[in-house]
Amino acid sequence: MSMSMQIMPSWPISRRLREILERDLVKNTILGIIVLNAIVLGLGTSSIVSERVGPLLDIIDWIVVVAFTVEIVAKLIAYGPSFFRSPWNIFDLVIVIASHFPQSDGVKALRGLRVIRALRLLSIVPQMQSVVRALLDALPGMAAVMVLLSIVYYVFAVITTVLYGDTFPQWFGSLGASLYTLFQIMTLESWSMGIVRPVMEEHPRAWIVFVPFIVMTAFAVLNLFIGLLVNTMQAAVEAEAEREADALRETLDAQTAQITALTEEVRRLAERGGRHG
Amino acid sequence: MSMSMQIMPSWPISRRLREILERDLVKNTILGIIVLNAIVLGLGTSSIVSERVGPLLDIIDWIVVVAFTVEIVAKLIAYGPSFFRSPWNIFDLVIVIASHFPQSDGVKALRGLRVIRALRLLSIVPQMQSVVRALLDALPGMAAVMVLLSIVYYVFAVITTVLYGDTFPQWFGSLGASLYTLFQIMTLESWSMGIVRPVMEEHPRAWIVFVPFIVMTAFAVLNLFIGLLVNTMQAAVEAEAEREADALRETLDAQTAQITALTEEVRRLAERGGRHG
Amino acid sequence: MSMSMQIMPSWPISRRLREILERDLVKNTILGIIVLNAIVLGLGTSSIVSERVGPLLDIIDWIVVVAFTVEIVAKLIAYGPSFFRSPWNIFDLVIVIASHFPQSDGVKALRGLRVIRALRLLSIVPQMQSVVRALLDALPGMAAVMVLLSIVYYVFAVITTVLYGDTFPQWFGSLGASLYTLFQIMTLESWSMGIVRPVMEEHPRAWIVFVPFIVMTAFAVLNLFIGLLVNTMQAAVEAEAEREADALRETLDAQTAQITALTEEVRRLAERGGRHG
Amino acid sequence: MSMSMQIMPSWPISRRLREILERDLVKNTILGIIVLNAIVLGLGTSSIVSERVGPLLDIIDWIVVVAFTVEIVAKLIAYGPSFFRSPWNIFDLVIVIASHFPQSDGVKALRGLRVIRALRLLSIVPQMQSVVRALLDALPGMAAVMVLLSIVYYVFAVITTVLYGDTFPQWFGSLGASLYTLFQIMTLESWSMGIVRPVMEEHPRAWIVFVPFIVMTAFAVLNLFIGLLVNTMQAAVEAEAEREADALRETLDAQTAQITALTEEVRRLAERGGRHG
Repeated sequence: MSMSMQIMPSWPISRRLREILERDLVKNTILGIIVLNAIVLGLGTSSIVSERVGPLLDIIDWIVVVAFTVEIVAKLIAYGPSFFRSPWNIFDLVIVIASHFPQSDGVKALRGLRVIRALRLLSIVPQMQSVVRALLDALPGMAAVMVLLSIVYYVFAVITTVLYGDTFPQWFGSLGASLYTLFQIMTLESWSMGIVRPVMEEHPRAWIVFVPFIVMTAFAVLNLFIGLLVNTMQAAVEAEAEREADALRETLDAQTAQITALTEEVRRLAERGGRHG
Repeated sequence: MSMSMQIMPSWPISRRLREILERDLVKNTILGIIVLNAIVLGLGTSSIVSERVGPLLDIIDWIVVVAFTVEIVAKLIAYGPSFFRSPWNIFDLVIVIASHFPQSDGVKALRGLRVIRALRLLSIVPQMQSVVRALLDALPGMAAVMVLLSIVYYVFAVITTVLYGDTFPQWFGSLGASLYTLFQIMTLESWSMGIVRPVMEEHPRAWIVFVPFIVMTAFAVLNLFIGLLVNTMQAAVEAEAEREADALRETLDAQTAQITALTEEVRRLAERGGRHG
Repeated sequence: MSMSMQIMPSWPISRRLREILERDLVKNTILGIIVLNAIVLGLGTSSIVSERVGPLLDIIDWIVVVAFTVEIVAKLIAYGPSFFRSPWNIFDLVIVIASHFPQSDGVKALRGLRVIRALRLLSIVPQMQSVVRALLDALPGMAAVMVLLSIVYYVFAVITTVLYGDTFPQWFGSLGASLYTLFQIMTLESWSMGIVRPVMEEHPRAWIVFVPFIVMTAFAVLNLFIGLLVNTMQAAVEAEAEREADALRETLDAQTAQITALTEEVRRLAERGGRHG
Repeated sequence: MSMSMQIMPSWPISRRLREILERDLVKNTILGIIVLNAIVLGLGTSSIVSERVGPLLDIIDWIVVVAFTVEIVAKLIAYGPSFFRSPWNIFDLVIVIASHFPQSDGVKALRGLRVIRALRLLSIVPQMQSVVRALLDALPGMAAVMVLLSIVYYVFAVITTVLYGDTFPQWFGSLGASLYTLFQIMTLESWSMGIVRPVMEEHPRAWIVFVPFIVMTAFAVLNLFIGLLVNTMQAAVEAEAEREADALRETLDAQTAQITALTEEVRRLAERGGRHG
């Protein structure tokens, strides 16, 4: 932001807005509103509470939405186009826009989703930002194995849908149903007693499909995990090895300087000897 | 404790008490009482045993409480205010105080909790102390991901309570019920056959909520674990790298000393050459 | 392949075929056909889709098989015997040959298996090839523990078949049934509520068999995983340690050269001094 | 064994026996008998096979026992007291002695246990010996956390027996039943739908006991695993760091020798200069 301040023309309003937005008081107020909002939405789940003070909760919710909207509009004015450089700002903007969709028309489901605003905690607390970033940083390294896993999933979903779709439509009736069931099997939840044993009563050799699927996905997930771990570890080990090597190199460089000085000395001695001779 | 002995005025009674308390015989006696107490409480769970020798077990329990109380009072007198510096002492004190709450008034539940006294094994055996300390040392490094996980939990608990609280009150009827059910789902126990498949019969798109929840919590727990592991490993690797680097630096330092001596020699030679010339 | 081009006699047809096959356009066309085939087979699982455009899907499938066959025959001609050097080629060949087995005679099961052709994605995309290779590279290091695990499995399968085969034939009726049930128990799926508790109602001491089996297999799998991880990590750490050590050695070698030059200088000085004297 | 051959007096019979026993032919014959025995015991589980060729299987079993007994007696004579130095020999001896217990008196259970003889594969194949040794080597490092886990188990077993023993005797009726149920809960098998939810219908706050138990044991097991992993890794890293450091030290030592030679040269020059002067 200090960068964008140098680049942008110093619009008086945007500059003052920025100063205000970057004050600790304003930031903490927003943080407080997020927490208050989260608590209010939590209380709203209790039918007793929402019966007694339901209108109050609605008013608080309305105030929260107004506050969020004012903040995001102020940020848009303050930072101009550079607002969109931060993914966190875009995240906040999407949440605030989503808060303005009509929710009163009986769509109770959407009311529950208002709690997603609590995720703004992740964008406003710097420590949370860095944790989320660390988690997301791990994803690219997992891409190749994830693609492999997806192909394996798809192949097994088609196979199980064709083979068991007619006899067990509730589990393998469509490609989507099979994908869900295979995800359940990968998590090992009731895979045998719940799914494979009943299937084997109709198709006695079904284990030929499911046991390899379990072994393959377990092995792929394991490798996903090992890749993630080795990457994280390697960075840590590298930093340490470099620090130690740098310390040694410093000692070595001091020694080299000493040898250079000594060589100079010897050379002077030789020259003097030459002149002397 | 040796430190507190130097700081504190050498009260004759407290000094003698300390000497007694730090004797191996006394320590082992307390250890024996803790083990005896644990065995007695274990035997007390058998209705046959408690019918036949119930009164005897009660007497032993009474003796144990008296012994613990005497020990803790002696420690309080012996170490004075410095008693409270050790968290293990506070742990012991809480357990002993809890032993004096009235338990005879039909509250059988509280009788069972007397076995918590067996946890004094953790505070009296030094090896156990260090294992517990190592486990607790790992906690701060997990704090950031734990907070993130808590926010995710809370958001999903509110969403599931609003969406499925009416149709499945036994699982999602309140925020507390939802939190418990989400914990169960995170452990992957019967998440699909037990919870999500029944929910999907009413709300066919429920998987949009639960599958991401499983993936996100699994990923967060994985990162928790990787963080823990890398920290432990890094410390070990650092120590090793430092040891090796120190050994090399020693060799290097000897070499530097040699070069310094050589430089001296050359300088003397030059000086003599100068005088000579 | 560039190697085989140098070794093989430059047959005009095979050389031109090779040139064509190695064009990006041709490779991407094959990739597109594989993806198209996978999508068509996925659509074929939907009864609505296959009712309406079933014949069209069959035609596309036929075109795909023809395209694959032409490609593999072209490759065979182009590379001659060196075709069989690459396991990926053999993999492709097996899949293409399998596509030509008669599938129209009501054997619906085999139709589902056509989706295995989608696995050609693994052989045609270089990144996928390397991921699969990395996964397979991990296998030899796991061999010893796998053999140990197999012996443990076999021993427990015989024991459980003899002990519980008569009372629980659905789980332990034959060696195969026992092996499947033990695999289920190893994955911890319903091991207690589903299998061991019912068995314990007939054989109260069955836990003496199953609890050690769970602990032993969990421990073996854990060691499998640790072995895998340490191997991967060690390679990474070794590379890093070597890089740092090499950098230090370079500095050291420069220093040694400097000392050698200095020694020369001193020797010349001494010689001159000798001549001078 | 080569060592014991030097130490022991060269008894002619024992020496010749040893020579015979250490021949590859003899070792492979024993290995073959073990594998044959394992196969025969596997076939014996099939009621069809044991009906038709049951007597034949019994004869083979008898031959195997005789062969094993002859081998072990020969080894006892050949190596004398040093036989007992190898734990593998003791393992074999126990298995052979167990084979001679009467098994024909209707105790079918014991027949199944004859398959344990297949575990002799672990003692006769050197690679298997080293894998088992590696697994056992990991145990001492896990001792402290295991003891901690045992204390936690015992405390929770007493608490759950006292609190839920009356209402759920099938799960918590005795200390043993509680320990088994807690093991099941630790493996996360049906912990919620199977155990804790039913318990919570009677004792709504039961989750206060079980959720901490799950978190604590999961955390302890995690630390067990991390400890194991760090130990294994550290050894590997240490070896690598030492190798690299040794290589550097060699270079350094060569340099030091060079500097020493240079110093000699300068000193000689100085002496000559002194004499010259």
